Amino acid sequence: MRIVVSAFAVVIAAVGVHAYNSTLDIQSNLAATNHSAMADPGKPLAHLTPNVGWMNDPNGLFFDNETSMWHAYYQYNPNDNIWGLPLYWGHASSEDLVTWNDHGIALEPENDESGAFSGSIVIDFNNTSGLFDNTCLPGQRIVALYTEHSEAGERQYAAYSLDGGYTFNYYKHNPVLDINSTQFRDPKVFWHEETERWVMTLALSQEYKIQIYTSKNLTSWEFQSNFSHHGVLGYQYECPGLSKIPIVHTTSSNLTQSAGLTTNNGFADYKWVMFLSINPGAPHGGSYNEYFIGDFDGKRFTAQDAATRAVDCGKDFYAMQTFSNAPNGEVLAMAWASNWDYSGYVPTRDWRSSMTVVRNLTLRYYSPNPETSELTLYNQPVFKSSGLNTKQRLIKKSLKLNSNESAIFNVADGAHGLLEFTLEWKVNSSAVTTGHDMADLSLKIKGVEDDSEYLRLGYVVSAAAFFLDRGNSRVNFVHANPFFGNKVSKNLEPYESAEDGLPIYNVQGLIDRNLIELFFNDGSSSSTNLFFLSSENYLGEFEVSTGVDNVFTILNFDVQQLSVGN
Amino acid sequence: MRIVVSAFAVVIAAVGVHAYNSTLDIQSNLAATNHSAMADPGKPLAHLTPNVGWMNDPNGLFFDNETSMWHAYYQYNPNDNIWGLPLYWGHASSEDLVTWNDHGIALEPENDESGAFSGSIVIDFNNTSGLFDNTCLPGQRIVALYTEHSEAGERQYAAYSLDGGYTFNYYKHNPVLDINSTQFRDPKVFWHEETERWVMTLALSQEYKIQIYTSKNLTSWEFQSNFSHHGVLGYQYECPGLSKIPIVHTTSSNLTQSAGLTTNNGFADYKWVMFLSINPGAPHGGSYNEYFIGDFDGKRFTAQDAATRAVDCGKDFYAMQTFSNAPNGEVLAMAWASNWDYSGYVPTRDWRSSMTVVRNLTLRYYSPNPETSELTLYNQPVFKSSGLNTKQRLIKKSLKLNSNESAIFNVADGAHGLLEFTLEWKVNSSAVTTGHDMADLSLKIKGVEDDSEYLRLGYVVSAAAFFLDRGNSRVNFVHANPFFGNKVSKNLEPYESAEDGLPIYNVQGLIDRNLIELFFNDGSSSSTNLFFLSSENYLGEFEVSTGVDNVFTILNFDVQQLSVGN
Repeated sequence: MRIVVSAFAVVIAAVGVHAYNSTLDIQSNLAATNHSAMADPGKPLAHLTPNVGWMNDPNGLFFDNETSMWHAYYQYNPNDNIWGLPLYWGHASSEDLVTWNDHGIALEPENDESGAFSGSIVIDFNNTSGLFDNTCLPGQRIVALYTEHSEAGERQYAAYSLDGGYTFNYYKHNPVLDINSTQFRDPKVFWHEETERWVMTLALSQEYKIQIYTSKNLTSWEFQSNFSHHGVLGYQYECPGLSKIPIVHTTSSNLTQSAGLTTNNGFADYKWVMFLSINPGAPHGGSYNEYFIGDFDGKRFTAQDAATRAVDCGKDFYAMQTFSNAPNGEVLAMAWASNWDYSGYVPTRDWRSSMTVVRNLTLRYYSPNPETSELTLYNQPVFKSSGLNTKQRLIKKSLKLNSNESAIFNVADGAHGLLEFTLEWKVNSSAVTTGHDMADLSLKIKGVEDDSEYLRLGYVVSAAAFFLDRGNSRVNFVHANPFFGNKVSKNLEPYESAEDGLPIYNVQGLIDRNLIELFFNDGSSSSTNLFFLSSENYLGEFEVSTGVDNVFTILNFDVQQLSVGN
Repeated sequence: MRIVVSAFAVVIAAVGVHAYNSTLDIQSNLAATNHSAMADPGKPLAHLTPNVGWMNDPNGLFFDNETSMWHAYYQYNPNDNIWGLPLYWGHASSEDLVTWNDHGIALEPENDESGAFSGSIVIDFNNTSGLFDNTCLPGQRIVALYTEHSEAGERQYAAYSLDGGYTFNYYKHNPVLDINSTQFRDPKVFWHEETERWVMTLALSQEYKIQIYTSKNLTSWEFQSNFSHHGVLGYQYECPGLSKIPIVHTTSSNLTQSAGLTTNNGFADYKWVMFLSINPGAPHGGSYNEYFIGDFDGKRFTAQDAATRAVDCGKDFYAMQTFSNAPNGEVLAMAWASNWDYSGYVPTRDWRSSMTVVRNLTLRYYSPNPETSELTLYNQPVFKSSGLNTKQRLIKKSLKLNSNESAIFNVADGAHGLLEFTLEWKVNSSAVTTGHDMADLSLKIKGVEDDSEYLRLGYVVSAAAFFLDRGNSRVNFVHANPFFGNKVSKNLEPYESAEDGLPIYNVQGLIDRNLIELFFNDGSSSSTNLFFLSSENYLGEFEVSTGVDNVFTILNFDVQQLSVGN
């Protein structure tokens, strides 16, 4: 949520706009603040966070194919650990999408009362902008398009880098787009090959419009169309983005095992997807990231239907942006892992917020129920790469669960908060003898220092849904904050059928200090949620149990304690 | 959620289908069940509940203008306090929409393995069906259309009553509509004056289609159109309904004080609204009730846009149905006040579930943000009628709140769980000195016997949202159930502006034993939620406080302890 200038909404603006410091003395700011309730969980190890200060939306994500380096920028307040003006673009880079080097400020606003708000970066390989000469390698002709926000309005600016994205020059004739609006922001730009034009989507936020502009040169933009009033509207639209997403005709999803449905008849091998964030006004409170599947002719996006689909169904996923120039035609993306309802109050001290893990986006056919097949956005973590090592690992295949037993998987040795697990289970619902008993598969992930603090996850047959409970904590914020709810859930269809015909379900979990990301059924849905336990009470023991006999069989449970680097 | 017959989804069916008893021996069933965790809150006093057994969707709602009696039917399992076959229509009546007399079974399924699933009732004033003669008053020519569910399929049946809705005759030539589907249900019928036809909407549930049929005689139905893939899709569509809703051009909403917008140019004085329930798959988990605004020509419904709007933003609001034949052209409706994710496990014993209070539905223009005005469904409780008496009342006008003070309003005398309150407050956000402090207006509503149990409600400036926390309870279910989340919230725009230009917000709350219904800003949104405290620990003390100075002023706080009858 960004400040809103009109008097009508001054209530929202007031908290955003607090006193700022022109020098980077965040420590003195923090010293003046009451942090008695804080229990800093320690920074995530394998996720992008700022070294110090406040972070929100990811910006300007791109891959430099000259150096094989990934770059990410982010909305950044270096002066405090809450949002405030002046707001900058921070900058980080990564070789493996696991560990990130934070380089601090990359783009500055025009003055201390303004902000370099969200935007994107494109690689101007062919120098359409005329901003480069031959001394700049084609793959490093970096142009940022972003919103310069001030009380007077929100105008679109350009900046370019001649050193691979570490420093920027501001375009001399900014703004490149100005429609005299105070609620007009978040340009995301890409090259549309079919029409040989640059395409920009951005939000006319409070009119619930995504506007589409085109350009030949990145500095002169022509209005083409509005995409309006789709999805949950909330208070306002933010951070739209349009991507050409490949359709993957998988043989491992829930489809091939069900109903004889075919997946590759009569469809192109890609569809266009419009992403949109709204805040506040999520159905589950606060921030929400939705998407619409359709077609794009270079000027207008047409949705295939009027359905509202969520990119991620957790509480902490917002402002997702895709990377420009990702190799092999893959669509990779990253989101801010927080929720504006409470992001400024989470119990961290010198830094606030992290991004999600980078995710690979595809479209696949999925059966949300037995009678239909729907094209669905899959997102899968790009996580198991070179930067991670296994410290401890336990694997269990074929474990039948009964009500008087529980299975313990302890990977607490050297626990420091970075874990991965995969759980695959089979359900024999005919063994549920009475609807009065809750047929649950429950997974407790317990703190090593204090096992009264734990995450509880699992699946319940009657609800046909997977749950996460982040409320079992001694951290005051968890209970006192009025918006940090304890329980989230996602209804779940079978991943596949076992040889005996019983349904199988699957979840992959990534845990990094205070963030858990769940990927269901190969990524047909995901749920990203913050959690907070006491300082250094890292998770290390998994306990699997159920309240019923003969219903649940674990087919695969694979738990790893991970470390970053050597 | 109803049982699903395919093997693919047998996991869902298994819990629904439990052993049933052909006689009404619910007590023996219950005795065989472990109820140690139960803390029955006592039945709501001014809401429809069954005398004994399980209730879900409201069915066949109508007003008998011959006797001035309101009738409500409901999905009913008299044999147990969980859902199960055989499933019946229960029946209740009310003179005042406050107190209800439960008459038990009204409609039966064909056999013990089937269910008389959801449907509606119309008054066939002109005997288009030929089922009546002159011995039946025109206003009592009652025809029920409902779904006969069995493993073989879901078919639409008709039944009619000759005694004002107390007993029914089954139409001899049932089914009246059969398309050979196992997922085809919930007919809601109304008379369309313009085309002089009966119109039926019902769900082809797992294809995400609302089908529209028309008829001249209620027994022969002709397909007209599909309304498909709108809104959050979830697992399946249920309980659609189409209503002609009046547009009210109010002078008391947030619009007239903002931006000089006019509300009555270029619009008809009504719009058609399509209601739809989905379960599971709500963005907040489980059950969800959404609506779409548009036009209807007698055959096809066309939505005005592709936005998804929620009828109610709480956790416990599902399957809303409108009353047939409500006087004065008003559109009145009632929903099931629970959520399938946990409805079968809530800590009540002999009965399970209640309906919401009856609500008056209108469309009004509302500004969700400073830059736009949107036609929005308002719902307001039909509650303050003759059946209620005030036992104790406290009113406070103009109370400025500071951080070291709290105001107590005690209406605990004779507390028995039925309360109403109105809270209107003004926000001076310029007095928020730092974004590090949470600027909250908090309202604790405490148990009379044990004030460690309480509801917490309030508004937070930075989130621009109203919150409810139902987690402060000693009842095991509240914490143990994996889906009964503690916190819900709703972003809120100002209701109006004060003379000093500061924004004013407004909420009305109804509390009846274990149910709280919140109506914001005259009903521009609502939030319906169950809560559970220890037995007979009724709410009676309101404590208002804030963590900041000079930000919040209470303009009106009006609290009543109510009783039903004399």
